[in-house]
Amino acid sequence: MRDVSIIGIGQTVVAEHWDRSIRDLAVEAALKARQDAGVERVDALYVGNMLSGELNGQENLAPLVADAAGLPPIEAIKIEAACASGGAAVRAAALAVASGAHDYVLAVGVEKMTDLLTDGVTSALAMAADADYEAGHGVSFVALNAMLMRRYMHDFKAKHEEFAPFTVNSHRNAARNPYAMYRQPVTVEDFLDSPIVSDPINILDSAGICDGAAAVLLAPAAEARRSRRPPVRIAASACATDTVGLAERADPLVWQAVADSARLAYRQAKVQPKDVDLFEVHDAFTIVSVLTLEASGFADRGSALKLAAEGRIALEGDIPICTLGGLKGRGHPVGASGTYQIVEVVQQLRGEAGAAQVKGAKIGMAQSVGGSGSVAVTHILQV
Amino acid sequence: MRDVSIIGIGQTVVAEHWDRSIRDLAVEAALKARQDAGVERVDALYVGNMLSGELNGQENLAPLVADAAGLPPIEAIKIEAACASGGAAVRAAALAVASGAHDYVLAVGVEKMTDLLTDGVTSALAMAADADYEAGHGVSFVALNAMLMRRYMHDFKAKHEEFAPFTVNSHRNAARNPYAMYRQPVTVEDFLDSPIVSDPINILDSAGICDGAAAVLLAPAAEARRSRRPPVRIAASACATDTVGLAERADPLVWQAVADSARLAYRQAKVQPKDVDLFEVHDAFTIVSVLTLEASGFADRGSALKLAAEGRIALEGDIPICTLGGLKGRGHPVGASGTYQIVEVVQQLRGEAGAAQVKGAKIGMAQSVGGSGSVAVTHILQV
Repeated sequence: MRDVSIIGIGQTVVAEHWDRSIRDLAVEAALKARQDAGVERVDALYVGNMLSGELNGQENLAPLVADAAGLPPIEAIKIEAACASGGAAVRAAALAVASGAHDYVLAVGVEKMTDLLTDGVTSALAMAADADYEAGHGVSFVALNAMLMRRYMHDFKAKHEEFAPFTVNSHRNAARNPYAMYRQPVTVEDFLDSPIVSDPINILDSAGICDGAAAVLLAPAAEARRSRRPPVRIAASACATDTVGLAERADPLVWQAVADSARLAYRQAKVQPKDVDLFEVHDAFTIVSVLTLEASGFADRGSALKLAAEGRIALEGDIPICTLGGLKGRGHPVGASGTYQIVEVVQQLRGEAGAAQVKGAKIGMAQSVGGSGSVAVTHILQV
Repeated sequence: MRDVSIIGIGQTVVAEHWDRSIRDLAVEAALKARQDAGVERVDALYVGNMLSGELNGQENLAPLVADAAGLPPIEAIKIEAACASGGAAVRAAALAVASGAHDYVLAVGVEKMTDLLTDGVTSALAMAADADYEAGHGVSFVALNAMLMRRYMHDFKAKHEEFAPFTVNSHRNAARNPYAMYRQPVTVEDFLDSPIVSDPINILDSAGICDGAAAVLLAPAAEARRSRRPPVRIAASACATDTVGLAERADPLVWQAVADSARLAYRQAKVQPKDVDLFEVHDAFTIVSVLTLEASGFADRGSALKLAAEGRIALEGDIPICTLGGLKGRGHPVGASGTYQIVEVVQQLRGEAGAAQVKGAKIGMAQSVGGSGSVAVTHILQV
């Protein structure tokens, strides 16, 4: 198994790109990653995407992107793992390089959500839940997360306002990221005044609907010096699953797939949570930040809110999360988010995160979650 | 890069499974493959599927199947490459084993098409074409193939009836396959009497809408003896792409992605077309059989019809194709077909194809094509 490095990164601004197509966004990110590396050669393309069929009327997405980027006859395949698609595509690309089948491999995460109105997007996102036993009964994806949040608040006697620091942190960091969608800082008061979406989840608990694409170019670590950029090593890449239906789990507040993928990743990278300098958390909803921090070993059960209250998740804290805005602040183009996270960890480890830089960052973790914790992909990157 | 073997196979009957879900079909195939091998351990699952979102309201499909098959916390990812998804999933699984990341990996191809009426399925299948420049103008997937067929008939002065032997061959072979959907033999007369779908393509030029799932269990070749079944080695696995839009190609009758993936596969396996004992062709339409046989080096340009006319594609011929019915006779549950092809090559190489057995088969090829030749996955298997 060959070691794999990230030698180039690219991303579009996350926004409502009314005037652009999914193809166009993906190509921008792909070409930027190639240009960043200064490497022309690409042997294969893995496109992480959840909903191109439902939202854009387009399957067969990977050859479409490859063609528009001028890449054929290379291999090109789409990877779907719900909201974890962007992380899963990087993992597929890493395995292709590790196997020796390919040397230079692009992973592009892309989602174009604004081609449909919000109710259409809500229906499409519900496809991450169990169609027969959850979505078929009318429960939306935000409603599932609302039930989790309510249960957490009940079990651990937490108040809704205690979740505010996660949103405040994400927006504060997004304000320093030129690629982020929501660059305005928000206060605890803004959070409390925010309209309810699905009780207790309000607008500022939730990552917004948007468009974007991010890309990484991978190469064997031994050949990474060919890049003009400092290579970042993929020290760990792991994926695990749990039931899709929440009702099937012994305890819905224990996200076992997240715990399993994190445990595998720590073992591969030979690190522990305390060694991680920054953690790109899948903060699709504030409750998801809480559950994944606990499952990944950064806080005991029921205590992740304290981590936020004490400021430990800030850029200056001991476990900075969502350092360039996270899903909440940067925006959450679902199938792209996992790739954005990895691009952002690379920015941090290269020391290129600008005003959002985590000082001296050497080890960064990115975790992409699909469904309500039904699939998790964890990467640990290292310089 | 480790050598990879297929140690177990499983498949459902291809049919209109009105009473069964996509989950149910996938699980049947997965469990059969595990049972066939007599191996309990599964480290990862790759699900090949094109349209679960559009047809079944279900994304996040791989964790759903993994859960229903009792497999979590294993890695589980969906692979989409239009109608080549089933072949691409086997390739993803093979890379995962080759890399050393996993040892025992399941690839399951599945499609459940009968949850929608035919017009809904036609719209969904058009997502294999270019949404902006083809499907958006109202051209259906069968219409694209009809234009190719018309052009072929014009360029090479071919008559429609000359395509009949492909359908006759597929149905003759399907009649000997208990898993096939269309087990009734058809004659050239039946073919000529068949109603037009999109001129010149008629019903008997076309693979039908249906449901099914097929699975293979892979392992490192060095550990394949743990299976209770004779292992079949994956001698080659290759994928290539071309433009999605037909209008972008210099010559739409030259399927370059097919040619490239076949060439790569021959090189990996160190064989030539003449060494191949049987070839599972992607006969979604008769014109596709013709174009892929020519692109893969079994016939010169404009001469594949002769191959069929001379009976060389029959079980007793020198290049038997669609030996267990192909997409036309067995049925074409789109994302599953590529996996069915590989299961069938394994049946042949093990000598378990019953009345459809190709005598003394040692080298078999399976080729799965997505879109109108925009992506092709070619496998060569060997005993």
